[in-house]
Amino acid sequence: MSKSGPSLLFTHQLSNEVIFSLFEKAKLYKETQFHNIPDSYSGAVPLLLFFEPSTRTKVSFQMAMSRLGLKPIMIDVNEQSSVVKGETYLDTLKNIMAMKPDLLVVRYGEDKEITNYLEAQETPVINGGGGVSEHPTQALLDAFTIYEEYGQFQNRKILLIGDIVHSRVASSNIHLLTSLGAQVGLFSDEDLCKDYSSQKYMFETLAQALAWADVIMPLRPQKERFKQYGYSASSYAEKFCLRQEHLKMLRSDQIVMHPGPWNESVDIEEAVVNSENSRIFQQVENGVYVRAALIDSILSEKHK
Amino acid sequence: MSKSGPSLLFTHQLSNEVIFSLFEKAKLYKETQFHNIPDSYSGAVPLLLFFEPSTRTKVSFQMAMSRLGLKPIMIDVNEQSSVVKGETYLDTLKNIMAMKPDLLVVRYGEDKEITNYLEAQETPVINGGGGVSEHPTQALLDAFTIYEEYGQFQNRKILLIGDIVHSRVASSNIHLLTSLGAQVGLFSDEDLCKDYSSQKYMFETLAQALAWADVIMPLRPQKERFKQYGYSASSYAEKFCLRQEHLKMLRSDQIVMHPGPWNESVDIEEAVVNSENSRIFQQVENGVYVRAALIDSILSEKHK
Amino acid sequence: MSKSGPSLLFTHQLSNEVIFSLFEKAKLYKETQFHNIPDSYSGAVPLLLFFEPSTRTKVSFQMAMSRLGLKPIMIDVNEQSSVVKGETYLDTLKNIMAMKPDLLVVRYGEDKEITNYLEAQETPVINGGGGVSEHPTQALLDAFTIYEEYGQFQNRKILLIGDIVHSRVASSNIHLLTSLGAQVGLFSDEDLCKDYSSQKYMFETLAQALAWADVIMPLRPQKERFKQYGYSASSYAEKFCLRQEHLKMLRSDQIVMHPGPWNESVDIEEAVVNSENSRIFQQVENGVYVRAALIDSILSEKHK
Repeated sequence: MSKSGPSLLFTHQLSNEVIFSLFEKAKLYKETQFHNIPDSYSGAVPLLLFFEPSTRTKVSFQMAMSRLGLKPIMIDVNEQSSVVKGETYLDTLKNIMAMKPDLLVVRYGEDKEITNYLEAQETPVINGGGGVSEHPTQALLDAFTIYEEYGQFQNRKILLIGDIVHSRVASSNIHLLTSLGAQVGLFSDEDLCKDYSSQKYMFETLAQALAWADVIMPLRPQKERFKQYGYSASSYAEKFCLRQEHLKMLRSDQIVMHPGPWNESVDIEEAVVNSENSRIFQQVENGVYVRAALIDSILSEKHK
Repeated sequence: MSKSGPSLLFTHQLSNEVIFSLFEKAKLYKETQFHNIPDSYSGAVPLLLFFEPSTRTKVSFQMAMSRLGLKPIMIDVNEQSSVVKGETYLDTLKNIMAMKPDLLVVRYGEDKEITNYLEAQETPVINGGGGVSEHPTQALLDAFTIYEEYGQFQNRKILLIGDIVHSRVASSNIHLLTSLGAQVGLFSDEDLCKDYSSQKYMFETLAQALAWADVIMPLRPQKERFKQYGYSASSYAEKFCLRQEHLKMLRSDQIVMHPGPWNESVDIEEAVVNSENSRIFQQVENGVYVRAALIDSILSEKHK
Repeated sequence: MSKSGPSLLFTHQLSNEVIFSLFEKAKLYKETQFHNIPDSYSGAVPLLLFFEPSTRTKVSFQMAMSRLGLKPIMIDVNEQSSVVKGETYLDTLKNIMAMKPDLLVVRYGEDKEITNYLEAQETPVINGGGGVSEHPTQALLDAFTIYEEYGQFQNRKILLIGDIVHSRVASSNIHLLTSLGAQVGLFSDEDLCKDYSSQKYMFETLAQALAWADVIMPLRPQKERFKQYGYSASSYAEKFCLRQEHLKMLRSDQIVMHPGPWNESVDIEEAVVNSENSRIFQQVENGVYVRAALIDSILSEKHK
């Protein structure tokens, strides 16, 4: 990556120039289905270290690496691992790094010490979704999906719905899409979007918000936090769920995206996921191309 | 596969012609130990998705793929995965498929929706043992082991013992072996073999059944269901367990098979597993060859 | 391996000649970072079977294999595996071996039956740390790290601290380092080093022990056994923990090693782990080279 070394820990490390060059490569991968990839770093060994549960992101990275001819080593830190022996995550991480992988993809919770440690590494590191604040490859694949749809970001209106404040997807997306020239609007409530109150496009009703937006993106709320904010699953759903009944309000050029995993009938209804407006499975597909582009860019740089 | 697209979801999809061509290839793999395999689809990325516990089947598929030069991606859906976030298995599956693996091996419980979804896929899918009704690759490896032993199925007598009704191995085997010309007999009881009461060869005593059979195959009962059927482990064992004492009743051309994992002294005794009549470890070995033959046949077709 | 077939189950199987030839290869791997490795057995499929939790050892073996161009199959036996269906570890192992991996790395608890079974195999097996008595690759990497530091073992003084009796690292290291000509000293207590009372170098105080040693190696105690031996974490720490305050007693040519994972402030303090005297992360790094050397030596022999 250009702005600060070979790693991608934070969305703000991505310049627009880097982003568009990644998109060019991702587009090529999609068109060619990775046909005839030069095998320039096949001896490289990437390592995936997940301190938090994941299926989609983990498999997406593995698939991207496999498509590039790489053989990732997968480490889930859970009850089968040294943590049961009392080792801290930072110690586990230091040990893993001592084994000199060529690339580390890591998912971890909010932990300043780990972030500081990762920033200091020469080994390239990709943040696989950390804590509440960062999920840069999700932001990239979301932006790529929007770019694929509209060919540009200028004047595009992206609406985020629901629990903004606990969503690493939201914070990464707001930063990235704004930098790329898009307008990001929010339909949320005071508690669930605090820190974003200066955001320009805020809506009073879902109907107003939907009328404004090109891209409609409900977020996954963390159900375990509902109580804390005075919500139940059903009261959250009543306010924020994107339902089948909303589909008839949508123009054909409006698209629905969702970072997944979704909570059926809490943030989105299955009928919407499977509707013609939905780009949700394209997002998942695009994740492989975008991550492969990122990995290729990092390893090509390293093996120059 | 020939009868209905590239997938193998159900045993009935396998024509005898396809079966024997798979056996030819499996035999070759066994003789050559995969030496000098042409590397015609090494860029292909297979994915193994297990919603249910497995060691043997999972490792067998991985070994088969590795022998063919493939690098499978392994996904266990459990507490480390998105399911903890409330995603349904079908949603997980749809997301995985959106990432476009070249082949999916999936084990899942009885779930009509998932089966319907899988049937509609263009991506080849192999059923890795689903629910109570289907385990086609187990049926294939069992049939291959019998074929290896006797060179034919015509007039061969295969005896299944015990809990027929809850065994996906039983239902797949009864179908496949019968199609191939073998006779399948049952030693069970009324509750444990209902739906199979029209089966021609039913035995009153284990001794009569053993005298009849060429191949003796005790099945693994699900201990958690014993109570429901009025059994305890010991009363089940008393009736159905294949014991050391039975070995002396066997001719040298009779063989013992078991789909595994076995319950020591419930469905079979260790002395029988390790006896000269046993082909149980050959079954496990053959599983690798047969699955490799199947995978090769599917991917060769796809990459034609 | 030279003394008894292709496997490495016990430290005593390693002759000094074999050890030094492994070290030569490990040194080469470290210097060249595995550059230009001949790909002489890339079709080989190694299998890692862990019946006990591990991160460091498991990832180290995987990394070593990946660096050699191998694609290991990883099997964790836990709640996702056949053991939930009542299969014994020995049965699981027999099934796995029936699938004919080219190499098996296995970690298992103290189990004579399993050890006997493994000894009888033609397939090469590496003990990945078994029970309380053996962890031969840890002993090798520890010895390599000492050799790297001092260029020889003759007259080198290695001090083990703490819970000797429950440490497979201790028993493997005492054997290996003594064979190589080093002196091994213990600072422990009567209960925690019984069976080693004939050891020549025993110390009354940590200060005396530290003054004597070249290499200082605190061991990881098993906290769950503290009570049984009349210890608490804090009373164990008071007696055995290597603390920041000890650093000022050390000469610059004394090194600190630890097999990991460590218990912060129980057996060692973080400041010591990160001190200039520490070689703890070098140990972890060296583990990859030493294990790769061992695997290469075994597979080269097999594929001759």
